[in-house]
Amino acid sequence: MKIDGIHYRTIWVADDGWSVEIIDQTRLPHEFTIIRLQTADDAARAIKDMAVRGAPLIGATAAYGLCLALREDPSDEALARAYDMLAATRPTAVNLKYSLDAMRDAVGKVGHNARAEAAYAEAARLCDEDVETCRRIGENGLRLIRGVAEAKPGQTVNVLTHCNAGWLACVDWGTALAPIYMAHDAGIPVHVWVDETRPRNQGASLTAFELGRHGVAHTIVPDNAGGHLMQHGLVDMCIVGTDRTTATGDVANKIGTYLKALAADANDVPFYVALPHTTIDWTLTDGVAQIPIEERSSREVTHMTGRADNGEIVTVEISAPGSGALNYGFDVTPARYVTGLITERGVCSASREGLTSLYPERKG
Amino acid sequence: MKIDGIHYRTIWVADDGWSVEIIDQTRLPHEFTIIRLQTADDAARAIKDMAVRGAPLIGATAAYGLCLALREDPSDEALARAYDMLAATRPTAVNLKYSLDAMRDAVGKVGHNARAEAAYAEAARLCDEDVETCRRIGENGLRLIRGVAEAKPGQTVNVLTHCNAGWLACVDWGTALAPIYMAHDAGIPVHVWVDETRPRNQGASLTAFELGRHGVAHTIVPDNAGGHLMQHGLVDMCIVGTDRTTATGDVANKIGTYLKALAADANDVPFYVALPHTTIDWTLTDGVAQIPIEERSSREVTHMTGRADNGEIVTVEISAPGSGALNYGFDVTPARYVTGLITERGVCSASREGLTSLYPERKG
Repeated sequence: MKIDGIHYRTIWVADDGWSVEIIDQTRLPHEFTIIRLQTADDAARAIKDMAVRGAPLIGATAAYGLCLALREDPSDEALARAYDMLAATRPTAVNLKYSLDAMRDAVGKVGHNARAEAAYAEAARLCDEDVETCRRIGENGLRLIRGVAEAKPGQTVNVLTHCNAGWLACVDWGTALAPIYMAHDAGIPVHVWVDETRPRNQGASLTAFELGRHGVAHTIVPDNAGGHLMQHGLVDMCIVGTDRTTATGDVANKIGTYLKALAADANDVPFYVALPHTTIDWTLTDGVAQIPIEERSSREVTHMTGRADNGEIVTVEISAPGSGALNYGFDVTPARYVTGLITERGVCSASREGLTSLYPERKG
Repeated sequence: MKIDGIHYRTIWVADDGWSVEIIDQTRLPHEFTIIRLQTADDAARAIKDMAVRGAPLIGATAAYGLCLALREDPSDEALARAYDMLAATRPTAVNLKYSLDAMRDAVGKVGHNARAEAAYAEAARLCDEDVETCRRIGENGLRLIRGVAEAKPGQTVNVLTHCNAGWLACVDWGTALAPIYMAHDAGIPVHVWVDETRPRNQGASLTAFELGRHGVAHTIVPDNAGGHLMQHGLVDMCIVGTDRTTATGDVANKIGTYLKALAADANDVPFYVALPHTTIDWTLTDGVAQIPIEERSSREVTHMTGRADNGEIVTVEISAPGSGALNYGFDVTPARYVTGLITERGVCSASREGLTSLYPERKG
């Protein structure tokens, strides 16, 4: 999507033809900075420190991390080492494994001398595939938004989203935000309630940033507000992303998603989850019991970074000194609270039957 | 309760015998500062700027605001003017009206010359009444915590609370936290999950501060985390406060309370609301439709104040510049999600029948 009129993806090969560039998302919305990754370690650090985040972009960055590793050393040992290191960066997103497995398959077929080249080709293919996947998710979700718009002609469609499942979380377009961009571009009056998404505020910083740059009407709300908004008819639909989806339609997404799903259920607001097939973990059947939930540093809760009046980026302690904090990264929304899954192949119910109707090759 | 070994109330008459002192709660947890109020305007500003907050303490501060007004001018006009100004400071808490009405009744009976003295006496009586009310709420809630503790001997009782309904919200003891202080003092192993309570972070700043100073085990969690905690059996019960309670048991409390009630309901976690009778608005029967919800400045969402590494208190912008934000102060939890109301007269169901069983004088 565009920033100040220039089209960007979130990750690309630099002009030198081998190093990899990304947008440092830890500096957004205050600074737009591009970082160059030159080693697999750089890529792993970018994932771990969340310079890149969002399940699809994590996968893409890991893919390029393998490229950088194989460029230095194309041996089987180096491949295995880089695979393991990159796979260990974040525990919840399953795309990471999908990407790394695709990369390993692609380079395993060729001789050591051709491995780096094959890796770059495969990483580029994975990125293009992600863009096309998100575009299709956008088209499928657009039909849902259009349906709401037609039911209230002339009125604004209010969509609530949580965290950032926009183009900054993917290579381009986004998952949950792709239908919103398409609706906006199609002239449907759409307004987005942006959950700020504590503790890292990806909503207030990233989602608000990218919607604003694209010109989509939006309002930031504290995570606490969604129940009140839905209770008062101010939300027509929720669309969120997912970091891992079970074969039965449970979704693990940014902590707090579950609370919004409960509020949507209690107030008859449709609750959709947008996802590329790469986030489906076909081995799992019970999200609450089986999906590992990342626990992150308590400092993300007790401290907050922002821009002071003098323009300086400052980190401040916001909670009572000496009080501990706990920081789970994700929660699981059971399938029964999900109205539908928006995938690149269409919209289905959040169930094994729904998913296998779109992905019949996974049946049985 | 105690801070550094010294017993404080949240509001008291200063040594000069007439001006009123409060703890500036906007400076907590970083600074413990006492402010002196010398006019009714000072009192109104303290309420509006949230130097004092919490329904019972708002009521107490408004009462002393009338004292300060009558000390300067005991006329009926001055009384009416001060009453209206103080009543308009915050729209949601009904205690404000309760206190101001009690004050007007008390001073209306006496001659102009005796009004200031009568006002100070009535304000002191209202404060003492609030302390005693909270103490009784604590005793009644303690029985519920003791019940949970007896069902899991030797294990910690985990209580989740939202916002600050502790002694800092009252004159002493607190409402939701009173049972917790009593359980702790009685040797019951109790641990509190403290919702940080965006956007003003009263949980992370005030509740964590007061629990920590009293030595109660607690952990700050983002508001988003409660659903996950309850889903995983990590919460034995929720206890929150309320700013206004309908005659039918709906409760208006800090924005986000409703989401926790939904999660408690979905996961069979008892959800209790602690309240003095002064928060009951007997004229209302439908909280969602009838309770006015305060909308506060968007800057409370887009900016955050805390302590920088150099010790300085700094306000930083934390969201995308140019993006608007909406800031509702409260939401309403319908009675059907409330397991019980903990009042100074006992625990009852959140219903007209429950409330009139404790307050039979309100029947019919």
